[in-house]
Amino acid sequence: MDWVTTMGYLAGICTTSAFLPQAIKIVKTKHTKDISLMMYSVLTTGIVLWCAYGLINHDWPLVIANAITLLLAGWILILKIRFG
Amino acid sequence: MDWVTTMGYLAGICTTSAFLPQAIKIVKTKHTKDISLMMYSVLTTGIVLWCAYGLINHDWPLVIANAITLLLAGWILILKIRFG
Repeated sequence: MDWVTTMGYLAGICTTSAFLPQAIKIVKTKHTKDISLMMYSVLTTGIVLWCAYGLINHDWPLVIANAITLLLAGWILILKIRFG
Repeated sequence: MDWVTTMGYLAGICTTSAFLPQAIKIVKTKHTKDISLMMYSVLTTGIVLWCAYGLINHDWPLVIANAITLLLAGWILILKIRFG
């Protein structure tokens, strides 16, 4: 794997794993008052589009990163709807 | 512009503009208690890496989207540090 692809995966690991502490924080506190519902609605839509764009371009770091981000951001969206 | 590139820009518009309502919400309420500092620290790092990855691959939808997201996510990070 060349260093550019490695950088893509590293970027993906950061922008994906970033959502995990937010999800854990909500699960622990059950508080989502300061979280924007609009943000997670629009974000989830955009991530689905990035997945499709990456699939068409055979850009695997982009596809894998966005697929995992979709799970985490979608989870936060569900928690916001549930606790918000 | 072909439809795949259009889809990339559309994905970028969603995942970028999504952070705007969150930033506006914080500016209005000055409350960031439920926002994860770790999330925005790791996210900002990842977005910088996506910008570099996109620049190397000449993937302009990816570069432009992440450059704008960097401004907005960086703004939320600063607000979290300031009000958190």
